Amino acid sequence: LSEIKVLSDGHFDMLSESYLFTEVRRRTALLTGGETHGLINLSIGDVAYPIPEIAARAMVSATEELADNARFRGYPAETGYDFLKNAVCGYYRRLGFSVDVDEIFIGDGSKTDTACFTDIFERGEVVIPTPTYPVYMDNAVLRGNRVVTVCGSRQNGFLPTPEGLTDTPKMIWICSPNNPAGSAYDYCGLKKWVDFALSSGSVILFDAAYSAFCGEGVPKSVYEIEGASDCAVEFYSLSKAAGFTNLRCSWTVVPKAVKTKNKSVNALWKRRQSARFNGVCYPVQRAAEAVLSDEGRAECKAVIDKYKRNTRVLGDFLKKSGVWHTGGEHSPYVWLECPAGLNSWETFDLLIKKAGVVGTPGCGFGRGGEGYFRLSGFTRPKIMEQAIERLEGLKIFI
Amino acid sequence: LSEIKVLSDGHFDMLSESYLFTEVRRRTALLTGGETHGLINLSIGDVAYPIPEIAARAMVSATEELADNARFRGYPAETGYDFLKNAVCGYYRRLGFSVDVDEIFIGDGSKTDTACFTDIFERGEVVIPTPTYPVYMDNAVLRGNRVVTVCGSRQNGFLPTPEGLTDTPKMIWICSPNNPAGSAYDYCGLKKWVDFALSSGSVILFDAAYSAFCGEGVPKSVYEIEGASDCAVEFYSLSKAAGFTNLRCSWTVVPKAVKTKNKSVNALWKRRQSARFNGVCYPVQRAAEAVLSDEGRAECKAVIDKYKRNTRVLGDFLKKSGVWHTGGEHSPYVWLECPAGLNSWETFDLLIKKAGVVGTPGCGFGRGGEGYFRLSGFTRPKIMEQAIERLEGLKIFI
Repeated sequence: LSEIKVLSDGHFDMLSESYLFTEVRRRTALLTGGETHGLINLSIGDVAYPIPEIAARAMVSATEELADNARFRGYPAETGYDFLKNAVCGYYRRLGFSVDVDEIFIGDGSKTDTACFTDIFERGEVVIPTPTYPVYMDNAVLRGNRVVTVCGSRQNGFLPTPEGLTDTPKMIWICSPNNPAGSAYDYCGLKKWVDFALSSGSVILFDAAYSAFCGEGVPKSVYEIEGASDCAVEFYSLSKAAGFTNLRCSWTVVPKAVKTKNKSVNALWKRRQSARFNGVCYPVQRAAEAVLSDEGRAECKAVIDKYKRNTRVLGDFLKKSGVWHTGGEHSPYVWLECPAGLNSWETFDLLIKKAGVVGTPGCGFGRGGEGYFRLSGFTRPKIMEQAIERLEGLKIFI
Repeated sequence: LSEIKVLSDGHFDMLSESYLFTEVRRRTALLTGGETHGLINLSIGDVAYPIPEIAARAMVSATEELADNARFRGYPAETGYDFLKNAVCGYYRRLGFSVDVDEIFIGDGSKTDTACFTDIFERGEVVIPTPTYPVYMDNAVLRGNRVVTVCGSRQNGFLPTPEGLTDTPKMIWICSPNNPAGSAYDYCGLKKWVDFALSSGSVILFDAAYSAFCGEGVPKSVYEIEGASDCAVEFYSLSKAAGFTNLRCSWTVVPKAVKTKNKSVNALWKRRQSARFNGVCYPVQRAAEAVLSDEGRAECKAVIDKYKRNTRVLGDFLKKSGVWHTGGEHSPYVWLECPAGLNSWETFDLLIKKAGVVGTPGCGFGRGGEGYFRLSGFTRPKIMEQAIERLEGLKIFI
């Protein structure tokens, strides 16, 4: 199941010419002659609702502080303000375990955090279960790491296991609930990875960007697994959880016990952030604090429930149509096998040309993604209904 | 005058344990037992006034848009919104030349931009005129470049020239007006660097973070020098120019003509930003647009004039006291020779212990900085007067 690529130290021109979603936009414009009016976009995972009211209020009030002679602030704290870190501690307390304030780093988005994090490790082996978020692979290539992919498939429900990997220490990316496949490890499945990391001296890089979509029976945080705080770093984003795609706020948990070659990963990341980052502005951090409050979480949950309903409806349609798919239950994405023997980009073209629906070709998410397609639930219920009507009209789904 | 270090490919633990200003904070806390009340901070270049009213108004209004059902936005444009890029074009038009919208990249601060920019070049030689902003050196070490320092001194007025450098292609950092020395290249001095870059096939990385402090006779932008748009990238920050240290907004100009090993630097940076960055939030970009308007620029200038007055007053005191110094005229910093034969950290300790004034030790800015000290004009006029009284009381300055 695993495939090994040895990569030399790379530069940005070693990457494919453009980032997946840039390419999706480019080809959409090409296929439609730039006339995108009337298209239904189920491609990128962007928000379909405004930012939460409570976030806007906090942000306005914090902006007024910055403009006030007695209350303004200068450079933000590099790793984040304590008020927000304390709110993050509260998030983990509600999940049943404790994280220290010094283990939390506030960032401007999980894309930046995950892209840059492996820079602090010496070059080595990176395990990437594919298909997955392309940023892990792009940045492993840039850093010149040896990449081992373990491949998701229909057989393993797009939830590959560490079986067959060598026992040398590695960096291991896990994105669960998974982007793009929408599948999520249960406790047992995630425990296999944690156990493997502990026994091999590896570090798990756990991307929890979609944890707000978890239903019953799957862990929202890697730290729900025993031993994880000795071997795992967790990335959390407010983009999908709280509609912060525009505002840009995330956090990374780096437990003090996690080491790479006997060095503290926490100390290395702190040093990296102080050399390459200047923190997130105060108003955005106040907005982030607000959405972590009781009222804020309720407001966010109401929106997430709408997105989840969309993916459920879409999943029901695919099921009825006999199309193999996964996702939807713990995720805003549905991942389906391309119909009629088409490949990923052919499906992309067909859906735009015949149904005016934009999705994301599975092959853009790496090995194992060819022949699959991702549709996103980040839209309004009415739009999702229209999209399904259009797909029904296409016939190939029936 | 130049010194060559050959650096192996590095990791973050190759850097000194902490970033200069983190170390300044740590030692200040140590010397005062954490009792920082009553200290006058002339160390870090942080703002002493609130953000401009016009920026706050724009930000509040943009936040309300994000919370509005009909007007919200999702992911920001990765390289920045056109409305802000157009405002940046206006900034350059007022200086007398034209920059294309596609040559502008909006970032979250010049620290991030300058720290990450050289990642897109193949490993090679980096020229760093020292003493200077430590981020250039830290990140050259991390990237494993061969670093050549050319040293500022009393003799050259802390404005070193390219004389004596080999003619192989290089990346060349220029910070003018200079941090920390406050000195600024005139047209003639900067032209030497541009001519050298053109003849050697080098790329100039021009940090214009302090250009808002330029008086008459010195270029605000590297593009005021003929030929620069073929060989120079410019970094501009709103932190000091518009009091945006908290808000985090900057831009980088990457002319399409600039190449490294026949590759477009513009295309490489675009690819890097799409793999590692997700843009700056809409409200902050609207705030940035606002401070670039006529009204916004007038508001910012009023504050800058206050800071410049502070450094002038401080410079006058040093002159009267017979202390050699530079800066102040085109810069918010005064750079002085340590009094009484003290070294930089000794001066740091003494000023805190005997005068309750925090400055920045010159040695923290690299080679040539030992024996010098930086004091910042980023404070209120009354505080600067108090600081000068305290320094007068110290006697060592007289």
